[in-house]
Amino acid sequence: MTMAHAKRPKALLFDVFGTVVDWRGSIAREAQKLLAPKGHDRDWDAFARDWRGRYQPAMERIRSGERGFVRLDILHRENLVETLDAFDITGLDEAEIDHLNHAWHRLDPWPDAPSGLARLKREAIIATLSNGNIALMVNMARNGGLPWDVILGAEVARAYKPQPEAYLRSCEALSLGPGETMLVAAHNSDLVAAAATGMRTAFVLRAEEYGDPAHEDAKARGSYDVIADDFHDLADKLGIPRP
Amino acid sequence: MTMAHAKRPKALLFDVFGTVVDWRGSIAREAQKLLAPKGHDRDWDAFARDWRGRYQPAMERIRSGERGFVRLDILHRENLVETLDAFDITGLDEAEIDHLNHAWHRLDPWPDAPSGLARLKREAIIATLSNGNIALMVNMARNGGLPWDVILGAEVARAYKPQPEAYLRSCEALSLGPGETMLVAAHNSDLVAAAATGMRTAFVLRAEEYGDPAHEDAKARGSYDVIADDFHDLADKLGIPRP
Repeated sequence: MTMAHAKRPKALLFDVFGTVVDWRGSIAREAQKLLAPKGHDRDWDAFARDWRGRYQPAMERIRSGERGFVRLDILHRENLVETLDAFDITGLDEAEIDHLNHAWHRLDPWPDAPSGLARLKREAIIATLSNGNIALMVNMARNGGLPWDVILGAEVARAYKPQPEAYLRSCEALSLGPGETMLVAAHNSDLVAAAATGMRTAFVLRAEEYGDPAHEDAKARGSYDVIADDFHDLADKLGIPRP
Repeated sequence: MTMAHAKRPKALLFDVFGTVVDWRGSIAREAQKLLAPKGHDRDWDAFARDWRGRYQPAMERIRSGERGFVRLDILHRENLVETLDAFDITGLDEAEIDHLNHAWHRLDPWPDAPSGLARLKREAIIATLSNGNIALMVNMARNGGLPWDVILGAEVARAYKPQPEAYLRSCEALSLGPGETMLVAAHNSDLVAAAATGMRTAFVLRAEEYGDPAHEDAKARGSYDVIADDFHDLADKLGIPRP
């Protein structure tokens, strides 16, 4: 399927963790690099998955109204303390914990992401629509060469996905109706929530995010406007030529 | 004066209208292009200055609390209707008024701005800190090749400069203290307000903004950390080498 120019979304809004960057591999490498020299021998992939696993429950307290909005850096740090405890890792000072927490600011992009985003940017606004906070997204973009036009998402919207406000306020910030935009994500639940607000949807398969063919996001499970293998395949299907 | 790396601000936040882009020349050209073929013969420079002159009073109603926050596109359009009336220009349809209003999304950068920003970006985060809204800033950046890391300012902060919240919330969005940042502006009043919040300051002379050597911003009138002739001179003075 190729999309004619007139039907192409004016803005592509991207989920980031897992869709644009490899959080699992990056966090496992950073944890090992900091902690192995201190004598800790652990399954660093499991460490990364444990830390990430505390992400949705932490946000859920905010989505439910039990807790006021705080940015993701703060949730990540609280969760890291829990993960360190769960893995029986002690003896880190506060600066070391902060450094490891900022590994989220240094996540490596999937190999196609920098060049794919640059290609997509020639024909559409490209924006983050992540639960990550602004500083995290800015530092990650500078680290990984991600050429965003604008950082949107939870901190600008003051709402965490999949709350509809997170999507709708991001579109509104661009002065676009949801139907003029498209969410690009590797996660079925995110795309289903975006579609419910009127956004168009593109599923990008990131099989290595979890490295588990049985994972719910190892295939597209909904009816999306585009299903793509990576960002260049997405550009092909949107009719955006190679440079 | 050259600044050593350790003393350099981590983020440079930019006023935009007049500092990065030439609103007066751009608006005069767009107004003439749309309106002269319709038989209107006016002083288009005066038209641009009149439209811009309605900017501070419109924001002041919001700063004072008389009116809730609305984005600048809306204020610009209300002000345009007044300027058209003041210049006795009638007969435009709504789409033509919208098109002229969006001339603010298409303002041309000063000649040094795109390359100067790209140079500054190599060593510091570069962000907008403008009263312009997000969509306006994004479209302007794509039109003029302005390589912002992030769009901050009034719409993200929900406060118009020179209210302190506009500056402080922009720094906070980057997880930086005001003293780790620097406002870059061509306007003395903006820099004085930023300095009062603890931000560092750089005055960049834009003599052609008003083209009037008697204008209050035709010279630096305060004590700023840097005074520069353009963005490359600013990079020189921050110790950021030419590429």
